[in-house]
Amino acid sequence: MAQRTRFDWRGQDIISIRDLSREQIEDVLNHAQQIRPDPQMLVGKVMASLFFEPSTRTQLSFTTAMHRLGGRVIGFSGTEGTSIVKGESLQDTVRTIERYADVIVMRHPLEGSAQFVADTVTIPVINAGDGANQHPTQTLMDLFTIKKFHQRLDDLKIGLVGDLKYGRTVHSLAIALTRFRKIELRLISPPNLRMPPAILKELAGIVPYSETAELDLRDLDVVYVTRIQKERFPDIEEYEKVRGAYVINLKACEMLKPSAILLHPLPRVDEIAPDVDALPHAKYFDQVQNGVPVRMALLKLVLVGS
Amino acid sequence: MAQRTRFDWRGQDIISIRDLSREQIEDVLNHAQQIRPDPQMLVGKVMASLFFEPSTRTQLSFTTAMHRLGGRVIGFSGTEGTSIVKGESLQDTVRTIERYADVIVMRHPLEGSAQFVADTVTIPVINAGDGANQHPTQTLMDLFTIKKFHQRLDDLKIGLVGDLKYGRTVHSLAIALTRFRKIELRLISPPNLRMPPAILKELAGIVPYSETAELDLRDLDVVYVTRIQKERFPDIEEYEKVRGAYVINLKACEMLKPSAILLHPLPRVDEIAPDVDALPHAKYFDQVQNGVPVRMALLKLVLVGS
Amino acid sequence: MAQRTRFDWRGQDIISIRDLSREQIEDVLNHAQQIRPDPQMLVGKVMASLFFEPSTRTQLSFTTAMHRLGGRVIGFSGTEGTSIVKGESLQDTVRTIERYADVIVMRHPLEGSAQFVADTVTIPVINAGDGANQHPTQTLMDLFTIKKFHQRLDDLKIGLVGDLKYGRTVHSLAIALTRFRKIELRLISPPNLRMPPAILKELAGIVPYSETAELDLRDLDVVYVTRIQKERFPDIEEYEKVRGAYVINLKACEMLKPSAILLHPLPRVDEIAPDVDALPHAKYFDQVQNGVPVRMALLKLVLVGS
Repeated sequence: MAQRTRFDWRGQDIISIRDLSREQIEDVLNHAQQIRPDPQMLVGKVMASLFFEPSTRTQLSFTTAMHRLGGRVIGFSGTEGTSIVKGESLQDTVRTIERYADVIVMRHPLEGSAQFVADTVTIPVINAGDGANQHPTQTLMDLFTIKKFHQRLDDLKIGLVGDLKYGRTVHSLAIALTRFRKIELRLISPPNLRMPPAILKELAGIVPYSETAELDLRDLDVVYVTRIQKERFPDIEEYEKVRGAYVINLKACEMLKPSAILLHPLPRVDEIAPDVDALPHAKYFDQVQNGVPVRMALLKLVLVGS
Repeated sequence: MAQRTRFDWRGQDIISIRDLSREQIEDVLNHAQQIRPDPQMLVGKVMASLFFEPSTRTQLSFTTAMHRLGGRVIGFSGTEGTSIVKGESLQDTVRTIERYADVIVMRHPLEGSAQFVADTVTIPVINAGDGANQHPTQTLMDLFTIKKFHQRLDDLKIGLVGDLKYGRTVHSLAIALTRFRKIELRLISPPNLRMPPAILKELAGIVPYSETAELDLRDLDVVYVTRIQKERFPDIEEYEKVRGAYVINLKACEMLKPSAILLHPLPRVDEIAPDVDALPHAKYFDQVQNGVPVRMALLKLVLVGS
Repeated sequence: MAQRTRFDWRGQDIISIRDLSREQIEDVLNHAQQIRPDPQMLVGKVMASLFFEPSTRTQLSFTTAMHRLGGRVIGFSGTEGTSIVKGESLQDTVRTIERYADVIVMRHPLEGSAQFVADTVTIPVINAGDGANQHPTQTLMDLFTIKKFHQRLDDLKIGLVGDLKYGRTVHSLAIALTRFRKIELRLISPPNLRMPPAILKELAGIVPYSETAELDLRDLDVVYVTRIQKERFPDIEEYEKVRGAYVINLKACEMLKPSAILLHPLPRVDEIAPDVDALPHAKYFDQVQNGVPVRMALLKLVLVGS
């Protein structure tokens, strides 16, 4: 992008990747690339980490980001022992929290809950996952990782593999990719776990896509793998059959272009065989590491501005 | 109060509001009013947050207070996975903790436990609730809020509404009010949840009070509402009947003087209707916010003195 | 020791006391003796506290150590709500964590797990207990305490009392004592909880030891008591009989030399009677306190070197 635009991030909510333009996404990624640990930057700031649904990985990543910038963290993981079990409304809970903290990072099982909270409180809210809906900071770290290894976010062939129906990371990523040029998507999933029509509609006319049940990884620049969860299948045998068909093993990787990168939001169970980790394609641990600078950048932007 | 007295708070325990004179209460409130976040003030200090009974709100409030002053927090919430489940005595647990921390903040289901711990350890102990007994920091933030909106703690008509039998916040508050002049109390509760005789005895001859089962809010300067808990009633129908009678809704608020303020220790379930939140009387979220400066002041006072 | 040796601790793992020479042990103890709280020393460093098996005491001790040196802590206690319950391998979990943190402190129910993690990640790993195997930082604080009160680690008669079969603290300690001169061990346990042959083999020819079922505390310089756990006995009556025989009460203490010290890794249940706490022999709370400087020293050494 010719000239880099300046945005006023301070006090902004980060709820859905849909709210971010290409320029805004690139602005976050630029900040993430430049940010360095600085124990003075967020001194005196308090992040409330509200994980109504536990998630070690995302929670530790945000907490690490805050610690690396000198900020402090309060919060909970799971609702056991919280005032929610005493019957308190989500609204009252967060109206209390906003009297303590400077920013809310939240995960909640209910779609739309992050937006609801953002509408309720006056401090900025960062959505760390609301049901099957959105997980924008995951998408930003996915894009950060793609850009790091391909030096571009345009002109890419990207395969999304696995559970495209319920996986919020692939939903967020697909939508984010509509912001870029010359993207082609290959949607690889079992027939019962295809990308929802609503997402396909958002792609239509902007990002060309093909749908297939076959694990065809040829010509792709990026292969983004997600976990297929047992509980999505009424029949365990059906699940076992399907699961095997989407495992990325050494054999499957023979299809890959030399420059292709393999991503996965983690945790994986057995969608990617452990011996694949040694291949130069395997970038999922770089991806998880990139969560820290991306979240450092976001926290810095919404708390103190650019 | 003519001249402001200086107290030596350093190393003091805060166990019961009964231990505090009017001058001491006012000293805490003055400190709370003046204190500002300062990431250097408690650098190097460690607060042990021992919640043998979980309480998100109080725990987050204390933790925020410590963070705002640069201190650090260790501790637990709930006893699952602690050495208590291995059969360790409370005495041994806190004798260990005093070797790690500079101050203990504790909640425990047993009445008298906070005093027991204070008698056991040499570091200061702040009671964050022991059974139905005491919750002095809640009372201090209640008084702070009343003073903020009425500019005085004397010459007030105060209504306590709801469960006056088991609610430790109303017990602490009633006793605190004996320190002030020209207080009148109206005790509004279902017959089976009346204020315990022991508390009434402490009021006798000092604070005039009336008892009623009727939700009469007229002429009051402060209405302090508490939750009526289902488990207090042997009969669910009895509970449903009673609960409805003490709901503060828009209609009930028509009885209020313009300057009356509504308080509630939170969490509320439905004792105060959500549409009341928009009225100028509603001060319960200010009240919860005031927990932070009051606890900052107390932590500062017991850790480094005034 | 004539000349104090310099070791390069930076980046080192602390997995088993077996890996440490006498000189290395003494180097840690010297650092522990000299270290003082310093809120700048580990500023910007992040410790991951991974307690796959909860342990309040050890976890709070490490966390306090990190806080006293200005570092930050992330982590979890228990696996509920972590990605482990989603089926993630230990390897993937720690490969993620190493992207966030600068050092891993871990407890895990599986013997050998700490070494496995150390082999997996590139950041230093400190073993805070792996099954019945090792707990090296406990041993270092035990040695620190013995040295503090006896001014030496050679020429000591040491009794180990209680469950010598499953107690990892006595295993680690026994092995550590092979590094010192003129040590004599008296192994006091019920017949079914004797020291495992593998440990005895490591002592053979280096540390003379005797085994007895009788609570004979005469002539000992150090008495190290451990808990006998009910679940080790198939028959509850058998347990009750045995338990009583190894209780350290005032009567048993009459056997002690004036200079003898009593240690216990805590928590205790009733292996040491509470009235023993007042005797000058009782040093178990000093011992627990010494965990903080020992862990401060270790964290400093592995994170920034000596």
